Formats: sequence, structure tokens, C-alpha cells
Amino acid sequence: MATAGQVIRCRAAVAWALGKPLSVEEVEVAPPKAGEVRIKIVATGICHTDDHILKGSLPNVEFPVIPGHEGAGIVESIGEGVTSVKPGDKVIPLTIPQCGECSFFEPQNLLPDKTSRFSCKGKQIHHFLWISTFAEYTVVPEYAVAKIDTAAPLDKVCLFGCGFSTGYGAAINTAKVKPGSSCAVFGLGGVGLSVVMGCKAAGASRIIAVDINKDKFAKAKELGATDCINPRDFKKPIQEVLTEMTGQGVDYSFEAIGLADTMIAALASCNMSTGVFVMVGELDSGSEISIDPMLLLTGRTWKGTVLGGWKMRECIPKLVSSYLEKKFNSDSLITHTLPFAKVNEGFELLRAGKSIRTVLLF
Amino acid sequence: MATAGQVIRCRAAVAWALGKPLSVEEVEVAPPKAGEVRIKIVATGICHTDDHILKGSLPNVEFPVIPGHEGAGIVESIGEGVTSVKPGDKVIPLTIPQCGECSFFEPQNLLPDKTSRFSCKGKQIHHFLWISTFAEYTVVPEYAVAKIDTAAPLDKVCLFGCGFSTGYGAAINTAKVKPGSSCAVFGLGGVGLSVVMGCKAAGASRIIAVDINKDKFAKAKELGATDCINPRDFKKPIQEVLTEMTGQGVDYSFEAIGLADTMIAALASCNMSTGVFVMVGELDSGSEISIDPMLLLTGRTWKGTVLGGWKMRECIPKLVSSYLEKKFNSDSLITHTLPFAKVNEGFELLRAGKSIRTVLLF
Repeated sequence: MATAGQVIRCRAAVAWALGKPLSVEEVEVAPPKAGEVRIKIVATGICHTDDHILKGSLPNVEFPVIPGHEGAGIVESIGEGVTSVKPGDKVIPLTIPQCGECSFFEPQNLLPDKTSRFSCKGKQIHHFLWISTFAEYTVVPEYAVAKIDTAAPLDKVCLFGCGFSTGYGAAINTAKVKPGSSCAVFGLGGVGLSVVMGCKAAGASRIIAVDINKDKFAKAKELGATDCINPRDFKKPIQEVLTEMTGQGVDYSFEAIGLADTMIAALASCNMSTGVFVMVGELDSGSEISIDPMLLLTGRTWKGTVLGGWKMRECIPKLVSSYLEKKFNSDSLITHTLPFAKVNEGFELLRAGKSIRTVLLF
Repeated sequence: MATAGQVIRCRAAVAWALGKPLSVEEVEVAPPKAGEVRIKIVATGICHTDDHILKGSLPNVEFPVIPGHEGAGIVESIGEGVTSVKPGDKVIPLTIPQCGECSFFEPQNLLPDKTSRFSCKGKQIHHFLWISTFAEYTVVPEYAVAKIDTAAPLDKVCLFGCGFSTGYGAAINTAKVKPGSSCAVFGLGGVGLSVVMGCKAAGASRIIAVDINKDKFAKAKELGATDCINPRDFKKPIQEVLTEMTGQGVDYSFEAIGLADTMIAALASCNMSTGVFVMVGELDSGSEISIDPMLLLTGRTWKGTVLGGWKMRECIPKLVSSYLEKKFNSDSLITHTLPFAKVNEGFELLRAGKSIRTVLLF
């Protein structure tokens, strides 16, 4: 492309400091160095984790920073040695890179060479998780890019970069939900609804959706929930309600909110001898969760999941293929589509609980 | 037998009240009712859980009670309708009954009909976990009895009722340790050493034994530990030591002590993306454990285990067969053998850390 090798000036949403709203700015995006890829982002979702950055509840973030991590776009140019993608390819940048060299992940504020490709008003701007999708162009390491089917609608599959994959994978990969089993899903945001879709795809025969906002129930049922319950409708603790509904507790429980109390309730809701609890929601950085060890000692399992336990570079393209084959309906998570300039409006919808997912279009 | 249908007067160790030493008394043991089995106990181990009864750190125990739950004996008589065992059979009474009707267990202070078969000085004495092996004769439900090979030495296989099965099963069943993997075992008492044996039997290539008492290291090495480390020999936290020793943390970690701090250290010692932590030790009743949720959110698994996750009635006989085939050396856990009258001496050895397992003989 004509821009290859050049600095590109384009729009991005910059978080200048903790607690400030995002500011849409003109930024400079340097060309990719060796092993890097510059991507023109076409669409990006807004995820609660982006809001956690602004609130300071995510560890290891350095300001100023360009957030965003649920995007899809087209390769604009590639650095020296890049072989797995070429300009024009449709791609999803990966929140968890798959370098093939380690089994670890560590959030990154700069690219692997410890420098940034972003600047604005003469200041270096940090990357977020290496991918910063709230920028019209972003530069990421080659191993943090998954090439996807050319038929994929980027304004829809951008969700596979985080929310959908996290929830769907929590059921499929982390819990390994078995056909005929019973599941409880706490929290019916985009991630929780994706857990519901994962449980359904895995063949669960009972999927109990739990939320204090009953407006979420219709969509949960549409996506596979067999029962929807509101803890505020009961005097007894919700774990007792779920245990009574199922006889001995559910086989699998999921918490997709990020609160200690609901995590403990979800843990206590699964079968005391064989139940598996998957923690999907993120608690605030530095918070502690205090549990009665008997909840686990009797045989329960407590698992964490990051991005649904996928090996992202291999699996995102397969998820896109399954989407194109209509194996699940992740589109229904997208309640709002806004032009990129309205990014702060998108955050307002999120905080007010009015949106499930807002997709921003450049 | 001549005693069938009669009340038997025999010795038992009674815990009359919280915090008191056991008192060896003459007790009356009523004949088994329908569906029950009366067993002449030949040998019984002393387990930390019995000490927890005396200290009041175990929930749902009612005094006076006859403790003991790691025993082996011979069926003396059977109640109406009992078909799976007959007088003369060698058996191990089961701490977790396998009734085939539920996936639950609940500690029981009385037999299923809510009465006791024990009395002493005119007072009803409670059962412990239905099996009370600190009595020369005990009555248990049929589904809490496993018939074992007639060749089994009862003074050795009594450990299969609790300690050995718990540790060995934690590795084999709960963690499902894979060949070639790395393991860390915190606490080298009878249960921890049984975990070491389980890891070895499962083919782990590295088994790191952790204890602050280096006198335990020789036996740990004899049973399969490849490394033995004392946290007091290091300035840095033991989880950092283990992570450095293994590159990315162990594949499986086990805590067989029952302390919140060592549980958190063991959890943090396993691989942050794929590690499995198995909680084997029992914390005091009512205690809480407080953790940083990030320890789990990145992908670790935390599992509890009760008695090693065996379906006891089916599996104890198989473990006894494996023992007779010399597939593991559980005998080496038995450091002391005492006559039953010296039960309190056995507890002193346990509390002083001088014994691994003491077996009492009637």
C-alpha cells in the first residue's frame, strides 16, 4: 500500500490519565519494525476491561495509553521477516499472543523491543496488551495476529478478540461442559451470554441464567437458557435456590461479573462432590477473595480462564469458520453500532447496563 | 459366631468431651440391625482427623463419641438383608460410604436410623463418620464396608481406610498426574508421602517434596521424591523457589498440611496458565482462606479432594490387590505399632511429629 514504510496520521482514542474520559486525537503510528504487522482497524468492540483501564482497576497499565482489544481489521503493511500475513489479509489482533515459545502471558504496554509505535502531540503513547484497537491503525507483533477467512464480516467477528471467545471458551475449553449436564451462569452481559451459547453448543440440558436485571432474560432464553432467575426474587441465598432446583447443585457454574460475593455463590452452587466452578469475571486488581475451604475440600473444582482457554492464533480462525457456518449466533450480542467518534457514548451505554456490546466503526 | 445377636462388651476409646484425652472404656455394642454389619476391628491407624475431633476443629461432631476411621477387621455378624459380606470376611470400613444412591457425603454421628449401637456407663455414645474404628467391635451400614482379599494383612492395609488412599488418590484421581510431569508436595506426613507415592506411580518425572522438618526427607526420597526442599533454607518465598527450579512452576502442586499460607504458596507454585493445585489438607472448621483472584484467573485450577476421590467400595479392594502385588510400599508409612491401650501415646507421637503413622492393635 502507498502508506507502507510511512508514519500514518490517524484517529485514536487516548486515555491520558487515570479517571479521565477518552479523548479522540490525531496520533502518529510508526511503520512496523521487523516481526511486526501494521493493521488498519475496521471495527472494535467496547469491553468492560477497557473500562477497567480508565478506572485504574487493571494492573500494569501505563498512561497515556490507547485502549481497545476487541478489534478486527486488514493488514496495511508488514515488517521484515513477517511471513504468516500479508497486506490485504483480514485479521484479528490477539489479546493473548501465541508465540509458540512459552506457556505464559504477560500484559504488555510496549512492543517486544520496549518501544512504542504511537505518539501524539510529541508524547509517546503506550500500547495496551500489544494491540490497542481504539486506533485506526495499530502495530502488533506477528505472533499476536490471527489471519481469518476473507468472507468474515469484520464488524461482527471483532467480538472474537475478547468477549465472545472468553465466554464461549469458558464453557467449551475450561469447564469442558458435557452433553446432558446442568449449568448456572451468573451475569448476563456479553461474556455471560457467550457462556450460555457455549453451554448450549456443548449440549447442556439445563442452563440456568442468573442476573439481578430481568431485562437480560429474554436474550438469555433466545441464546439457550432454559431457566432465568433473579436472586432478588428469593429470600434464601441463590446457591440454595440452585441446589433445590437441581437436587444436588449444578454440574458447572460460571461467574461472569467479577464480584467476590457472586463468585462464592457460584462456587457453592455446583455439586459439592463433582462440581466445577469457572471464574470468568475479573475482580479489581489487588482485591482478595475469602472462602470457606470446605467449599472446595469436599471435591469441587475452581478454575480460572483467560480468554476462554483458546490457543488464540490457531483457534480464532476456526471460531470464525464456525461463525460463517452459523454454528452460533454471536451477532445477537451486538446491541449498538456507533461511529468511532462516539466512543465515550459507547462507554456510557456500557456503564448504564443499556448495551451488551457496542461495536465502533472507523 | 457365638456373639451374633448379642450385645458385646468390649474396649473402645471414648472422647467424652471436647479437649479431653481419650478414655479407654468398656462399652456395649448392640447387634447390627437390618442392613448393618458388626465388625471386629483388628487394627486401626491414628490420623490427624481424629486429633481434629478432640480439638474441636472438625464440624458436626457430637460428644461423647468413639473416633477412629482408618481401620480393618473381620465381619462378626450381619443384620437382616445384608448380602455383600458374611461373617469371617476381611473388610475395611469406609469413611465415605458408597450407597449408589447419591453423589453426596455427609458426616454421620448416628447410624442411618438415627440411633447409636454404642453405650457406656448407661450413656449413648455417638458414632464417628459411621465407622468408629477405635472400638474392638463396631457397627456400620453395609454400604460403608468394602470386602478385601483374604490374604491382606489387616495391620497394614488399615491405612487404606484414610491416609494412604487420600494422598495416593489425590495424585492419581483428583490431579490425574500425567507421565513426565512435575509435582510439588507440601507436607511430608503420612498423607503427603502417599501423594509422593501416587505421583511416582503416575509417572511424574520430577517430584519436589517440601517440608520444614528435614528429618522427613530421607523417607520422601525413598518413596519417590526427586528433590527435597526446606522453605526455611531460602530467603525468597517458596513459590518463587519452585518456579525457578522448574522454569514456569510445577504442573501439579499438593498441600497436605491444612494451613492457609501453605495452600496459597502451593497454588502459586504451579504453572500460572495450566497448573493444577490439589488441596488435600484440612483447614480448621470455620476458617477462611483469602486469595488474590489473579492466582486463579490466569488459568490455574484449584481442586479439593476427599479421601483421594475414590469410589471407595469399588476401589479399596483394588488398592488392596495392588498392595499385594507390591505396586507401592505403603508399609513404610507405619513408623509405630502399639497395643490399643496405648492410644493416647499414639496421639502424643502424632502431635510431636515423631510418627508418620501409628497403628493400634486390639
